[in-house]
Amino acid sequence: MNTQWARLLGIGVLAVSLWANGAFAAADREKLLTDPGVYGTFAAYAFNDDWGKKEGAARIALLTVLKGVVEQHREKLAIDLYLLRGLSDHADILFRVHAGEMRDIQRFLVDLQGSAFGKQLKVSGIMHGLTKKANYVPGFPDEIKAELKSPSDPGAKPYVVVIPIRKSADWWALDQDKRAAMMKEHTEAALPYHKTVKRKLYHSTGLDDVDFITYFETSKLEDFHNLILSLEKVKEFQYTRRFGHPTWLGTAKALDEIIEILAQ
Amino acid sequence: MNTQWARLLGIGVLAVSLWANGAFAAADREKLLTDPGVYGTFAAYAFNDDWGKKEGAARIALLTVLKGVVEQHREKLAIDLYLLRGLSDHADILFRVHAGEMRDIQRFLVDLQGSAFGKQLKVSGIMHGLTKKANYVPGFPDEIKAELKSPSDPGAKPYVVVIPIRKSADWWALDQDKRAAMMKEHTEAALPYHKTVKRKLYHSTGLDDVDFITYFETSKLEDFHNLILSLEKVKEFQYTRRFGHPTWLGTAKALDEIIEILAQ
Amino acid sequence: MNTQWARLLGIGVLAVSLWANGAFAAADREKLLTDPGVYGTFAAYAFNDDWGKKEGAARIALLTVLKGVVEQHREKLAIDLYLLRGLSDHADILFRVHAGEMRDIQRFLVDLQGSAFGKQLKVSGIMHGLTKKANYVPGFPDEIKAELKSPSDPGAKPYVVVIPIRKSADWWALDQDKRAAMMKEHTEAALPYHKTVKRKLYHSTGLDDVDFITYFETSKLEDFHNLILSLEKVKEFQYTRRFGHPTWLGTAKALDEIIEILAQ
Amino acid sequence: MNTQWARLLGIGVLAVSLWANGAFAAADREKLLTDPGVYGTFAAYAFNDDWGKKEGAARIALLTVLKGVVEQHREKLAIDLYLLRGLSDHADILFRVHAGEMRDIQRFLVDLQGSAFGKQLKVSGIMHGLTKKANYVPGFPDEIKAELKSPSDPGAKPYVVVIPIRKSADWWALDQDKRAAMMKEHTEAALPYHKTVKRKLYHSTGLDDVDFITYFETSKLEDFHNLILSLEKVKEFQYTRRFGHPTWLGTAKALDEIIEILAQ
Amino acid sequence: MNTQWARLLGIGVLAVSLWANGAFAAADREKLLTDPGVYGTFAAYAFNDDWGKKEGAARIALLTVLKGVVEQHREKLAIDLYLLRGLSDHADILFRVHAGEMRDIQRFLVDLQGSAFGKQLKVSGIMHGLTKKANYVPGFPDEIKAELKSPSDPGAKPYVVVIPIRKSADWWALDQDKRAAMMKEHTEAALPYHKTVKRKLYHSTGLDDVDFITYFETSKLEDFHNLILSLEKVKEFQYTRRFGHPTWLGTAKALDEIIEILAQ
Repeated sequence: MNTQWARLLGIGVLAVSLWANGAFAAADREKLLTDPGVYGTFAAYAFNDDWGKKEGAARIALLTVLKGVVEQHREKLAIDLYLLRGLSDHADILFRVHAGEMRDIQRFLVDLQGSAFGKQLKVSGIMHGLTKKANYVPGFPDEIKAELKSPSDPGAKPYVVVIPIRKSADWWALDQDKRAAMMKEHTEAALPYHKTVKRKLYHSTGLDDVDFITYFETSKLEDFHNLILSLEKVKEFQYTRRFGHPTWLGTAKALDEIIEILAQ
Repeated sequence: MNTQWARLLGIGVLAVSLWANGAFAAADREKLLTDPGVYGTFAAYAFNDDWGKKEGAARIALLTVLKGVVEQHREKLAIDLYLLRGLSDHADILFRVHAGEMRDIQRFLVDLQGSAFGKQLKVSGIMHGLTKKANYVPGFPDEIKAELKSPSDPGAKPYVVVIPIRKSADWWALDQDKRAAMMKEHTEAALPYHKTVKRKLYHSTGLDDVDFITYFETSKLEDFHNLILSLEKVKEFQYTRRFGHPTWLGTAKALDEIIEILAQ
Repeated sequence: MNTQWARLLGIGVLAVSLWANGAFAAADREKLLTDPGVYGTFAAYAFNDDWGKKEGAARIALLTVLKGVVEQHREKLAIDLYLLRGLSDHADILFRVHAGEMRDIQRFLVDLQGSAFGKQLKVSGIMHGLTKKANYVPGFPDEIKAELKSPSDPGAKPYVVVIPIRKSADWWALDQDKRAAMMKEHTEAALPYHKTVKRKLYHSTGLDDVDFITYFETSKLEDFHNLILSLEKVKEFQYTRRFGHPTWLGTAKALDEIIEILAQ
Repeated sequence: MNTQWARLLGIGVLAVSLWANGAFAAADREKLLTDPGVYGTFAAYAFNDDWGKKEGAARIALLTVLKGVVEQHREKLAIDLYLLRGLSDHADILFRVHAGEMRDIQRFLVDLQGSAFGKQLKVSGIMHGLTKKANYVPGFPDEIKAELKSPSDPGAKPYVVVIPIRKSADWWALDQDKRAAMMKEHTEAALPYHKTVKRKLYHSTGLDDVDFITYFETSKLEDFHNLILSLEKVKEFQYTRRFGHPTWLGTAKALDEIIEILAQ
Repeated sequence: MNTQWARLLGIGVLAVSLWANGAFAAADREKLLTDPGVYGTFAAYAFNDDWGKKEGAARIALLTVLKGVVEQHREKLAIDLYLLRGLSDHADILFRVHAGEMRDIQRFLVDLQGSAFGKQLKVSGIMHGLTKKANYVPGFPDEIKAELKSPSDPGAKPYVVVIPIRKSADWWALDQDKRAAMMKEHTEAALPYHKTVKRKLYHSTGLDDVDFITYFETSKLEDFHNLILSLEKVKEFQYTRRFGHPTWLGTAKALDEIIEILAQ
């Protein structure tokens, strides 16, 4: 971290990512990220033209505001940040926010957008989903269940991809058995990538214009690409009406890393 | 309510939501919200860049204007406000306006958009519908009718979702009996959510690019999500050409609450 | 009419709508509105941000310019104005212009857009059509012909709706007899609304991206809604590829009324 | 031509359209407009808000720049101008540029967009095509060939329409014989309009998102409308996936006419 | 190169394109451009309105910044530049960037967009792909393999076209043999253009909303057009859901050439 602005921000150069920092009381992040029945909001923003005209000190003041808003809401929310700039079309930063209640997420984003920092932002896209217990997995053979439970490879997974999906009406008209059989084939196609590509599923029907938000973390983008290619070859993919639009590709960053990059 | 701006606004800190305040003569809100033959307009706005640059006192002056415009039209209209910011893509506030004549709604929105407050707004989307007597319900079995008449759970339903729907040409080409049979299946799928998700239907054909505007209120977003999921599994859904685009998700707020939030 | 700005505009407070004012020589409006072989252009505009910042006197000066441009072109054109603001998405005013030659319409709109008033406008959409002799009516039974000839109910029809339509390639591939049979069914479905909803048809193929512009005037929007609903139930509707996008809903206003509303 | 600005521009009031003026050395316009193997670019521009704020003298200075840029490139290019304003949605002027090499067209448009005049413009749309020898005509009966060779009616054809077309994959999958048979039907449907509507075809596959750019000149827009209507009734039209979007309708103008109109 | 600004830039007038200049240590460009497993990003930008207002010296200062940012990242990246202005719709310049890791590409583009030069740019579009070993070629007959290995004609290939492609779900559902047979037909159709049109394929599935990015270089645009026409006639094309949107057409330029053109 650049010492000059770090001093201005009044934070230690050695400070690690905010949510990894035990010194602050915070939402039970682990629970929010693993429990069913949790709401997850993906909110992507692009900087407006004003931001480009700000000089170093003014930027740092605004980034301090960003940091303050995030800290203030960490009691109830798990907040993750991603840098989309350079990799995605019309968005610079992405927030993924988990909470037990959507109105807590709204309070955070209203505060963020209304803050001095937020006035530098244009909303690029907002999507919502809900985590639920696995729908089809209970009926899968034991060996698939076991593989799904095995942990992914340790180590950082810097790349993040977010892909919204809308299924066709024909998909929902299928009976549960037929859908389960196709989801088994889907799951088997995905298993070879289980260790290198971490996945998380959000159910969006009614909360947004899509049915699912799929979220991926990996250190090997080629594996991720091959995973999606495999998933497009199984029968279930023929019931997909929208895949992406947008596809958000970015890199996971701690709040302080984002601040450091944006301060420049 | 923040005392400082409340004093500036010249309103009592204890004032409850405008339309709940018996001190003002107002349109017969109850009748407008329950009668058939009433027009309902959904008008969503986003703040423009000017708004972001306004300081506290200037904002409060503008919000006073908003309040004045709403009060002035309450004689003929039922006006509801929703906060979309943080939950919907390109809109910050949503007005739902009911009236016996569309031109009264136009007068209100022309006054609103032409006011000093309105000059801070960009139109995000405007949709219109008409309330009508239930089309298919008269032919339903008595037990369904009874369940439909039972009141929804008491208590606040803070979340609001607005989803426009366009049916396919094939839907309208079906004879009334076939459509009635499918709507019975649709209604049965929705019944389990009758108590926790309140619904209201607006007929839009010709007034806009959609056939229906569906409006939902709930305190349990997960129930709402499951309701929509159930509705996508019945046969009638296969005759839906557009569902959402936009889906507006927000929270119901009294005018004074909106003002308080926006004043900050 | 507000006396203050009327005095500024130098026009009499009692002046009725421009085109109803016999004091000016004007195009043979009646002929342009009823003859076949006449071009009709629908041009919708939204005010830009500059307009919102203009004070009363500056606005009135600009509206005087609008009035002047319209008067100047009334020799050759029939010009109607509609207020879309509050009822349509991204447009505030709509001009419907009829002329024997499209280049006269272009001259008017170039003058309008290039005027001091026009610099406050953004083009929202422009569509063109041509009036033609009824295509299928000559083959209809006499009683339908008679009903079509009966006048619509007298009295003002303040609401106006403009809906562009594009037919599918399959429609044009049908032979004339089959299309005539379906248009007879279409016409019969529309007859019950003949007295309360006035219709006018413009043929657009090649002049724009649509095949028809349908124009409706009514004082009873619910009747109009039911008319469109009936038309969506006949077979001919299945050959419709685009219906609306945009649907323009507004109110018919005399030029002076529009000026009065916009002056505020 | 208005004498005042003509004097400012330093050109004679009697000067006819630039490309008709033999006093300048210029590209062999006739050859470029009739030979196969020539590239044609359609570039439409809309004026930005700055333009609206320019006063007369500043406008004339900028239009002088436009004239200079056009003159400078006339050695290698055939440049035509059209006024779209008032007749097309989001474009004011259209350039049609023919050259033996696309890079010469790019040089012209880079110079134009980078000039003081070009800084008043926003790109509305750019499309490219290539002229080729007639594909299907050689196999047509002699009487069709003869009619195609007969000249169109003399006299000005002020209206111009540009319609891009994309064929379906099914069209290209047909064998040449079947396509030729359908194109014969297409050509026969068009013949009655041969004298009043002049057509030119550009092949775009790969150079842009469309397969063809069709260009029409006429003095009788109703004939043009009936021509397109006839073409939509033949079988070949069923293999059309995109027709228009945009449809550009405008009037052909000599450079000096455009300058005169824009100077005001 | 114009001597005046070249002196200002402090570079020799004779300097050839940056990446051809052996005086700088640079990424192993040849390897990045030919190896499988390399990431390629296409990032197109348009200048914003500020750029148009910059005078010569200010522009040159900004272009010096562009040059600096590119040089700084040449250690890890192969960076190519193309001029789209005049030939493509809403983009002026295109960067094609190859790297072994996507995060290195992000670092470059974040630096670029955050630089004084980048503040003059709007993102027009960003797409990513991955180079892979040929999928179907190993099973092709030897004579096709031989032709594919023959070098393309020597000499400059100034025109560049970039076309993104999305295949239908039906394509991916075919078994590998059927896809291989169709790709053989596709390859045979392309062979006649092998010498004059150079092709490169990027696999995008999951990284973006498309499946492939196809990149072409040629000096003969007509050959390129005929190549695409041939490819649209083979069966495989029927499994293409999106072709273009956008199609980027431009000319390859050395960094110094781009700077020279933009400095004016």
